[in-house]
Amino acid sequence: MSRKIAVLTSGGDAPGMNAAIRSVTRSAIAKGWTVMGVNQGYAGLVAGDYRELAARDVGGLLSKGGTFLGSARCPEFQKEDVREKALRNLNRSGIGALVVIGGNGSQTGGAALNDMGFPTLGVASTIDNDLVGSEITIGVDTALNIALEAIDRLRVTAASHQRGFLIEVMGRKCGYLALMAGIAGGAELVLVPEIDFEPDQIAEAIHDAYRRGKAHAMVVVAEGAKHNAEQLVRYFHDKNTGFELRATILGHVQRGGTPTAYDRLLASRLGAGAVEALDKGISGVVVGMNQGVVSTTPYSEVTGRTKGISPELYQLAHVLSR
Amino acid sequence: MSRKIAVLTSGGDAPGMNAAIRSVTRSAIAKGWTVMGVNQGYAGLVAGDYRELAARDVGGLLSKGGTFLGSARCPEFQKEDVREKALRNLNRSGIGALVVIGGNGSQTGGAALNDMGFPTLGVASTIDNDLVGSEITIGVDTALNIALEAIDRLRVTAASHQRGFLIEVMGRKCGYLALMAGIAGGAELVLVPEIDFEPDQIAEAIHDAYRRGKAHAMVVVAEGAKHNAEQLVRYFHDKNTGFELRATILGHVQRGGTPTAYDRLLASRLGAGAVEALDKGISGVVVGMNQGVVSTTPYSEVTGRTKGISPELYQLAHVLSR
Amino acid sequence: MSRKIAVLTSGGDAPGMNAAIRSVTRSAIAKGWTVMGVNQGYAGLVAGDYRELAARDVGGLLSKGGTFLGSARCPEFQKEDVREKALRNLNRSGIGALVVIGGNGSQTGGAALNDMGFPTLGVASTIDNDLVGSEITIGVDTALNIALEAIDRLRVTAASHQRGFLIEVMGRKCGYLALMAGIAGGAELVLVPEIDFEPDQIAEAIHDAYRRGKAHAMVVVAEGAKHNAEQLVRYFHDKNTGFELRATILGHVQRGGTPTAYDRLLASRLGAGAVEALDKGISGVVVGMNQGVVSTTPYSEVTGRTKGISPELYQLAHVLSR
Amino acid sequence: MSRKIAVLTSGGDAPGMNAAIRSVTRSAIAKGWTVMGVNQGYAGLVAGDYRELAARDVGGLLSKGGTFLGSARCPEFQKEDVREKALRNLNRSGIGALVVIGGNGSQTGGAALNDMGFPTLGVASTIDNDLVGSEITIGVDTALNIALEAIDRLRVTAASHQRGFLIEVMGRKCGYLALMAGIAGGAELVLVPEIDFEPDQIAEAIHDAYRRGKAHAMVVVAEGAKHNAEQLVRYFHDKNTGFELRATILGHVQRGGTPTAYDRLLASRLGAGAVEALDKGISGVVVGMNQGVVSTTPYSEVTGRTKGISPELYQLAHVLSR
Repeated sequence: MSRKIAVLTSGGDAPGMNAAIRSVTRSAIAKGWTVMGVNQGYAGLVAGDYRELAARDVGGLLSKGGTFLGSARCPEFQKEDVREKALRNLNRSGIGALVVIGGNGSQTGGAALNDMGFPTLGVASTIDNDLVGSEITIGVDTALNIALEAIDRLRVTAASHQRGFLIEVMGRKCGYLALMAGIAGGAELVLVPEIDFEPDQIAEAIHDAYRRGKAHAMVVVAEGAKHNAEQLVRYFHDKNTGFELRATILGHVQRGGTPTAYDRLLASRLGAGAVEALDKGISGVVVGMNQGVVSTTPYSEVTGRTKGISPELYQLAHVLSR
Repeated sequence: MSRKIAVLTSGGDAPGMNAAIRSVTRSAIAKGWTVMGVNQGYAGLVAGDYRELAARDVGGLLSKGGTFLGSARCPEFQKEDVREKALRNLNRSGIGALVVIGGNGSQTGGAALNDMGFPTLGVASTIDNDLVGSEITIGVDTALNIALEAIDRLRVTAASHQRGFLIEVMGRKCGYLALMAGIAGGAELVLVPEIDFEPDQIAEAIHDAYRRGKAHAMVVVAEGAKHNAEQLVRYFHDKNTGFELRATILGHVQRGGTPTAYDRLLASRLGAGAVEALDKGISGVVVGMNQGVVSTTPYSEVTGRTKGISPELYQLAHVLSR
Repeated sequence: MSRKIAVLTSGGDAPGMNAAIRSVTRSAIAKGWTVMGVNQGYAGLVAGDYRELAARDVGGLLSKGGTFLGSARCPEFQKEDVREKALRNLNRSGIGALVVIGGNGSQTGGAALNDMGFPTLGVASTIDNDLVGSEITIGVDTALNIALEAIDRLRVTAASHQRGFLIEVMGRKCGYLALMAGIAGGAELVLVPEIDFEPDQIAEAIHDAYRRGKAHAMVVVAEGAKHNAEQLVRYFHDKNTGFELRATILGHVQRGGTPTAYDRLLASRLGAGAVEALDKGISGVVVGMNQGVVSTTPYSEVTGRTKGISPELYQLAHVLSR
Repeated sequence: MSRKIAVLTSGGDAPGMNAAIRSVTRSAIAKGWTVMGVNQGYAGLVAGDYRELAARDVGGLLSKGGTFLGSARCPEFQKEDVREKALRNLNRSGIGALVVIGGNGSQTGGAALNDMGFPTLGVASTIDNDLVGSEITIGVDTALNIALEAIDRLRVTAASHQRGFLIEVMGRKCGYLALMAGIAGGAELVLVPEIDFEPDQIAEAIHDAYRRGKAHAMVVVAEGAKHNAEQLVRYFHDKNTGFELRATILGHVQRGGTPTAYDRLLASRLGAGAVEALDKGISGVVVGMNQGVVSTTPYSEVTGRTKGISPELYQLAHVLSR
């Protein structure tokens, strides 16, 4: 049986999205299917902007960050009539299923399509790792290593100054990146959206680190923490305590790296897993990595929820920074 | 209850070993225990060459490859009288348990000590990922990313030449690194110890890649494959086929990198897990990561066995390289 | 003749300072001299805090950023009686000359000592490249590559969004790093302290880049430019133009990298050049790289001046970003 | 006056070639000229395979290694009738001058064209740095940093083993890369094509390093040295001395890196310099960097010669490795 599927990337771009598109495409072609690449996420779905992807079209993508299909925002996709237009386009083109590579918002869009009867499934991809349905999502490992590299560099220079160094990493609602970067980088303090704190605790933690003989004092803060880097720098400056806090704000640098081996392998496996699921007649799920294997989780358990950080790892961060 | 444990690294050094030592040390100190670091692996155990590790002694180690405790070879540890000497040293120093960070050979030594009644457990660490008892071992992720970086660079230059490029990675008995580097790097062919092959298949695969319109032709070979890089280069040179094969042999470069975030986190978690296990009175096991969680596997299921590559992933490598 | 010299690092740490210390030390030892390493810059000179450096003491330093001698601030060194105390220490220890590795402020301190009759010379080292006396200073190349790596990553993610990306690099008075990072990274606009600008020009440049069909719009701003990153982000936010500007602030991350080959070679050559100069009886100069060769420039031509950016390269940045 | 020029890359690809093409193209367009990009080096010139390059066609190239124009070998270009065919193509297309980006062999081809009356000039680009006419050529800095990164990694793992580590870098006739990598990496011994040596000297140097208390013993060998890595490994193996030598052979990995800031800036400046020269009516020269400035050297002083290593730096390598 010949089959025609579409694939799109949506939401914030994540390193490894290209590897996922490649894997979906070549896995499907290996089954004799046809794959259509949708440009600019849901916007391209609405506009009917897609083209066939051959095996060669997805060559040379493994090492490239971002997404070659693009990933524009499309708030109007929340309207049912807009989604109906997208469905008409898909049906007119003879496309029988859709693979959505993205994070929380993206999977919500896919769930809505699937609810309207169009077989859709998701591939878990966001650097925030806040998506329920996959213990780890495509892009996290690369973003984490970029943050870690910055922390390592700060520690080199911090060792010769009695100051606090602050590094702000991504994570609006979820402190996963901050926490993991903090453990891997040996930060003295990690500030996450999930846990409240006051600025004075930072000064105390830094002084305490120096008292214990540490050669540096590093604080990792998630952008969505109660106070972000800019606010903290201003706080200490305005309070005029003589306490110096130097900030590094990584911003989108974390999205743009060459994908790590982990992200390429994860993307390759999840992309192939999405095709396998469709081949078995499964849709309405997010394909993710759980307990070391590729598995599927129903949209109903995924959308509208946010994965939090592990209390056990938060505790580990504290113990290991002593 | 006050407790005194020893920790050593053994076998080939792996990136992340230092993070594991740090985690064992600080996790134990947090429980009020004393930690002795053994120099040069089992050789130091026999010589009674160890010193107390304080929290500050294991600072600044997260970003450092290798092992600051050293890891000399010690073939004489296979003799029972030598091990008895080691045990006398341990007992005389009041040490009540031993943590061995290493791969297959290292765990065999630990199992022998444990069989002699001295509580010993292992932390899974080898870049080869051939150790049963942990789906992934400390050092693999870093070694893999180093191999991948080399493959990425070769592809850039390969794209402008109609030649075959060969890259030899580590792995005497296990093709894990070669296979994963091959998938992540998009190699046209992966040659592993587990599967026989003849040199002519390489020429055929490379010609086929160019016929299919590929801009490069890359072969990843494990050092323990039926024919290694040097032998393959000589074969094609001697056969005088006009077929050019350029080889890169990474060698120990793969061992020496700055540990990735993944390896630091894995080492941090396994090291803490080892202390947790001892705290619960568990020994005679290897602490590893399985199904996404830290778990223990009895020495009896670990020693004398070798983990092989996944047939499913070997098949995936083929499908995705089309 | 036996000879005894001292070496210190001062001011902001720069990648390659360690390589310079190593080179001074081993070059001097090769001549049969004795080398004293001064801890914490001028503060250590005043406190008499130094120790002999043997060849092995400076091993393993080439790949390390920062300075293992430390580099504390020492504002009181501007007072003559404080400097006299330092001189008494030096004379009492039988030290006959001093090598100061650092930037503008550091060389001023050295010049003052030299004016007081103590043979002193400088080695040009600052990531700002604002020091007269060396076309390029130790640390610049590493800092530049770190900034460039961030720009490359931003471009990957920028290509899928119609936004402006802003990256703030070091440089309080000198736009060298910003300008060079801008050329090497293909920035659409470079904002330097040497040239005034108004925020609206940025919006215009970014819109213009997109109009010309560019896939991204990147602005590099020196921290000492008329408006820095934080001010610019607030400006566009407050003006409520709908124009989005995302900022990355690198901060001290630029200081902490593993020194590049260029910085290690430059440091090795300048360090050896400093010893050569002393051997010829030359002091009161800064040792730098000019017109491709190691050369010396009298303190009188160095102190109190600041090297600016090249108008020709500023023009090149504009032409090549079209 | 409207003007039409062609640009090609030839010989081994070097990181930064793309930046040079971009710079030639945009610098020429800024003068109102038309630029034709020649595919596959001299082969494309003979086949008349070129196309116009607009400013947007050379976007996104700065960070890419290799050459997007390709660089096939073309031995038949040594025949006059083949070159005459190339000239007929150029004249028929109204092209008035040619820029050749490449190394020794490439500049010889350009000189031949220029001798036949067609205005041609070269841009110095080869990772070997053996080209007379530029103190440093495009691609050297990137290749050097890749070699250095491998050396740094080897040192990490070498520190825990009493063995010799050997790393083979590029350089058939010129030891520049080996020498510079040796100095920057702190190698105990550097083996270059310019200086003869016997294998036993290597064993001696390594034993000596350990005797002096070094934690590692690293030898850098150029591929064109009297004995290359493979031969040395076999020698020590066959002699059965018990002396272990582990080899890393980097091969083409050195060509394929993301260009460093230095290479991008050098390429940007030399490319612009080529256009400047043509604008002044200059041809028959190689554009290079000498004494810190962009300058031109007549083909007659460039072709048929090879730049050697600096004896002074060879001596420095020895002094600093003590």
